[in-house]
Amino acid sequence: MLSKNQRKQILQLSQKKHRVTQGLFVAEGEKVVTELLDSAWEFVSLFAIESQFHSKAEKISWEEMEQITHFKTASPVLGVFKIRPEQPILGEPITLAVDGVRDPGNLGTLIRLCDWFGLSELICSQTTVDCYNTKVIQASMGSMVRVHCHYVRDLGTTLVALNKPMYGAAAREESIYKTKLPEKASFVFGSESHGISGEVSAQVSNLISIPNFRKGNQAESLNVATAAAIVLSEIFRAR
Amino acid sequence: MLSKNQRKQILQLSQKKHRVTQGLFVAEGEKVVTELLDSAWEFVSLFAIESQFHSKAEKISWEEMEQITHFKTASPVLGVFKIRPEQPILGEPITLAVDGVRDPGNLGTLIRLCDWFGLSELICSQTTVDCYNTKVIQASMGSMVRVHCHYVRDLGTTLVALNKPMYGAAAREESIYKTKLPEKASFVFGSESHGISGEVSAQVSNLISIPNFRKGNQAESLNVATAAAIVLSEIFRAR
Repeated sequence: MLSKNQRKQILQLSQKKHRVTQGLFVAEGEKVVTELLDSAWEFVSLFAIESQFHSKAEKISWEEMEQITHFKTASPVLGVFKIRPEQPILGEPITLAVDGVRDPGNLGTLIRLCDWFGLSELICSQTTVDCYNTKVIQASMGSMVRVHCHYVRDLGTTLVALNKPMYGAAAREESIYKTKLPEKASFVFGSESHGISGEVSAQVSNLISIPNFRKGNQAESLNVATAAAIVLSEIFRAR
Repeated sequence: MLSKNQRKQILQLSQKKHRVTQGLFVAEGEKVVTELLDSAWEFVSLFAIESQFHSKAEKISWEEMEQITHFKTASPVLGVFKIRPEQPILGEPITLAVDGVRDPGNLGTLIRLCDWFGLSELICSQTTVDCYNTKVIQASMGSMVRVHCHYVRDLGTTLVALNKPMYGAAAREESIYKTKLPEKASFVFGSESHGISGEVSAQVSNLISIPNFRKGNQAESLNVATAAAIVLSEIFRAR
C-alpha cells in the first residue's frame, strides 16, 4: 500500500524545483523503467501492478497507480530514480545543441534521435525544458540512459570552447543539401517560436536551411525534432 | 459572455464522437486560427481576449477562455470551425500513409512535414488518431489547411489502387541511403508500438530502414515523425 507521504512525494516530482531539491525523478512505463534498471540507474522506489515485474518492485493496485502517475493514463510500472551527477562535456566530433526548446515531447524525441545517430550528449540552454521532466523521459523512450543532457549557462560560449565550426538552422539560408558539412561540427537548433537566441546566433558561423518544397512556401517551419532528424541524416548518410 | 451551453458544446468537441455528430472542431492559438481564417475555413464561433483580433470575434475574459480550452494552458484565441467534407484521393507522385499513429503530436508533426515537402494529402488508417483532435490541429501549426487527411477503411487496398510501388519503414531492412527511390511511390509508416499492421504489410513491396549509427544498436526505434522526416528528405533532396 502507498502511504500518503509517498503519494505526495511522487506527485511533487512532476515539478522541477522538487526534482532538484530531492535529486529524484519519476519514470513510467515498462520500457523506460526497464532501460533505466538495465543501465544500473539507482532507484529509490519501484511500483508495479504485477509483482513479477522486478524483485524489488512493490505491488500496488491500478487505483493507486492512477493516484501517482504524472500522465492522464497510468502505466503498469513507475519508478523513482536518482538524478545522475553532471558530467564534463565530451565534445564528440558531432555536437547537437538546443536553445530554448520548451516542449517536453520535442526534447525527448531529440534525445532519442541523438541515441539513434550514436551521439552521447546534447547541449541544452538553461531555457530548455528539464530532461528529467517525466514527459521528456517518456518521449525519449529510454534513450536518455545513453544520451547525457548538459545544461549550460552560456550556450554560445560553451560551443565556441569546443573549437569546431558552428552551424545554426534557420529559414531561407544555404540548403543543407548543397552544403559540404565537415567531419567535426556543432549544430544549434532554436526554439520554434523564437529561433536561436541573439547571444548564441552571434557565435554561429554558418547558417543552413532545409529547403521548403511547398510552392509559395506557406509552410512556415518544421518541428525542431524533424528538422534535427533531417540534418543528422545528412551528416551521417555519407558515412 | 459565454453561455453555459456554449461552454458545454466547446468542451464536448474534445471528443471525437461529438465532433462527428456536430461536424465541428476546435482550434486554439492565434497562428492556427489565423491560418484557418485566411484559408476561408468556415467558423461557427470565434472567441478572443482582445476584440481587435477579428471583427467577428467575441471578446471574452481569460477566466472564460480557461473554461473552454482543450489544453492545460489557454490561448488568447479559440475558434469553432466546420469540419470539411471528405475529398477524393489525388494520388500525387509521392504519397505518405500512416497506419495506427495514435499520438496526436506525432500526427500533427507529420501533417506539418507533408506541408513542408509540398504533399497535399496524408492517407490514414482508421486506427490513426483523428486529425480534428485539438492537439493534432495545434501540432500541425496550421499546416492542416494545406494537407488533407484521408481516413480509409482498408489502407493496404487503397494504396494498391494508387498503382505505385509501396515502401514500408521497418527495422534492419535495406538502407534508405542505398535505395534508389522511384519518382512515384507510396510510403507507409506504422505505429511506434506495433509497426505496420499485418494486412498492410502484406501489400508492401519494398522494406526500407534508416540505419542505426549507435554501436551495439541499443536505440530501438525512431519516433515516427522523425523517421518520416528523414525518408521525405531522402526523396526530395535530389530534386
